[in-house]
Amino acid sequence: MTMAFHTLRWVDDGTVEILDQRRLPTGVEYLRATSAEQVADAIRVLAVRGAPAIGCAAAYGVAVEAHRLSKLPAADVRSGLPAAFRVLETSRPTAVNLFWALNRMGTVLARSTDTTGAGIAASLLREARQIHAEDIAANHRMGALGAALLPHGARVLTHCNAGALATAGHGTALGIIRSAVAAGNPVTVFADETRPVLQGARLTAWELQQDGIPVTLLPDVAAATLLARGAIDAVIVGADRVAANGDVANKVGTYPLAVLADRHGVPFYVACPRSTLDFSIATGAGIPIEARAADEVTGFGGVTWAPEGVAVFNPAFDVTPASLVTALVTESAVIHRPDRIKLAVLDTAERSPSA
Amino acid sequence: MTMAFHTLRWVDDGTVEILDQRRLPTGVEYLRATSAEQVADAIRVLAVRGAPAIGCAAAYGVAVEAHRLSKLPAADVRSGLPAAFRVLETSRPTAVNLFWALNRMGTVLARSTDTTGAGIAASLLREARQIHAEDIAANHRMGALGAALLPHGARVLTHCNAGALATAGHGTALGIIRSAVAAGNPVTVFADETRPVLQGARLTAWELQQDGIPVTLLPDVAAATLLARGAIDAVIVGADRVAANGDVANKVGTYPLAVLADRHGVPFYVACPRSTLDFSIATGAGIPIEARAADEVTGFGGVTWAPEGVAVFNPAFDVTPASLVTALVTESAVIHRPDRIKLAVLDTAERSPSA
Repeated sequence: MTMAFHTLRWVDDGTVEILDQRRLPTGVEYLRATSAEQVADAIRVLAVRGAPAIGCAAAYGVAVEAHRLSKLPAADVRSGLPAAFRVLETSRPTAVNLFWALNRMGTVLARSTDTTGAGIAASLLREARQIHAEDIAANHRMGALGAALLPHGARVLTHCNAGALATAGHGTALGIIRSAVAAGNPVTVFADETRPVLQGARLTAWELQQDGIPVTLLPDVAAATLLARGAIDAVIVGADRVAANGDVANKVGTYPLAVLADRHGVPFYVACPRSTLDFSIATGAGIPIEARAADEVTGFGGVTWAPEGVAVFNPAFDVTPASLVTALVTESAVIHRPDRIKLAVLDTAERSPSA
Repeated sequence: MTMAFHTLRWVDDGTVEILDQRRLPTGVEYLRATSAEQVADAIRVLAVRGAPAIGCAAAYGVAVEAHRLSKLPAADVRSGLPAAFRVLETSRPTAVNLFWALNRMGTVLARSTDTTGAGIAASLLREARQIHAEDIAANHRMGALGAALLPHGARVLTHCNAGALATAGHGTALGIIRSAVAAGNPVTVFADETRPVLQGARLTAWELQQDGIPVTLLPDVAAATLLARGAIDAVIVGADRVAANGDVANKVGTYPLAVLADRHGVPFYVACPRSTLDFSIATGAGIPIEARAADEVTGFGGVTWAPEGVAVFNPAFDVTPASLVTALVTESAVIHRPDRIKLAVLDTAERSPSA
């Protein structure tokens, strides 16, 4: 299935085109960045968001800067690039994928034996394209594994945006839906609007509409009504971080959805790229939950609807215990009823040279 | 405790003052109605909402019209008033309390032996004041019964607005909180914002602020995080209709809250005026659920955030099974673990002449 939009892409004149997600869904505008500084800005202002998409953007940020300097001698390109790494590193300080992608780009730079500026730029662009292609390929593998879990004509409920817009393309939770549709399964989607930042209304509804996948938008709390009515066949969400025992931190609202799915016997799937599994954290209790700004809750887009000075509780994420997860879907495996031992086996298999 | 505002009140020059809830919380403006038509308009445009408040407003609507005609001979007042009843009856066609209040006013009119227009107007005003006073008194009795259920310093979570703004004053769910505070219990409140119409953010947060009761606003789905953390001691909500077996129809979002409260061992109380119990409906499955307009979900206050043409699921209410209700609190009794038999006993006791 050809996507009707691209989250970000390289243009051969030495530009990165980035879909400006702040303008969605009313405006579809692409930012054109020709320096690392401009890419860092796009990340900083949330024109591009979602951990995999940010990693990919940062890699292109290095490539675009190398292209800008590529007429200079190799030594000048090598001495000019560290500043670009620094500006990209500080664009979203807590994004794991950002550091991971910049590390890969740094390794390529350090190891390159190119004798011209153009040669260095070409090596870095090759690595950025590789990171981009790997992310899309991983999403397609995850999509194929997840699609096999869905019955024909499945009615799937999702929360937030774990879509093409959050990745280099295809998406994680929405990638499973896209893969199912591409395989001929007429899946329909119910999208939680996802208060307070409304990623479901603004991004998920838009990206599924673009691809012609039927989507119905609902207030988050109305999901319980659909589950109670037997109107949902599966819930699929993404993950921000998964602990070693399978507990899932994801957008606030995921946990109550998992509790309701469990109560009504509806499978609850978590699309979870391997990079999201964090074996350094034993359980969900160890995952720090970011508290976000009050003004996300007191209004939206210049309209204020809460009384001035009211106290606000606005956690970004919640934690769903592994016991409520029917399966984790990674790019290499479906882990049914995840627990510490199953995840440790997965980890060992992937670290082993024979895997 | 003196309320810092009034939802509606009679002014002796022959005016009903109605707090315009459409302007809250940024503007505090009172509409001044001097005819039944103006009161019906206030109901129609949702300046006043909440079943008990609507009933009370309609009663004053008849009184204000009778006052307007009170210089005329008694026969002319009697022949002029039926048009006022009709315009009030059609202002919100599905509101049970509206018909109930107008029936009471109609009975007073039919039975009155007053020989002057002024005499008829005085009789009708007396009945409207009586309806107003009875509603407030019922809320105070419910408040006292409910307040006794709360531990000292209880942290109470509520959904939507079952407050003074929805009644003639004091409120049902918020009436319990007000009564507890008035009795010296330093209760604090967590208010769900209540998407899509945001009654929690716009009305509950405002009316508690006005009374100096500590209130924290949150996205609806963040309530699960508070319950999971042990940060809530009781959930108290109102009810739109309660079936003969104790199933509760209330604002969408009530059911998932009840499921989460049950999971975390937190008592779930429903403030339920006797008029809300509907013995003609056997179970919650028989309660019709109104589907509301898509534009309540796709944006707010002139801002649109969902893509054009997206399908929307927007039920007004959901149904909480009686098995999840710790207690119903009416103005006459606390019914722990409600079921068909307990409610039938309550009904019989209240119908019996010795009750």
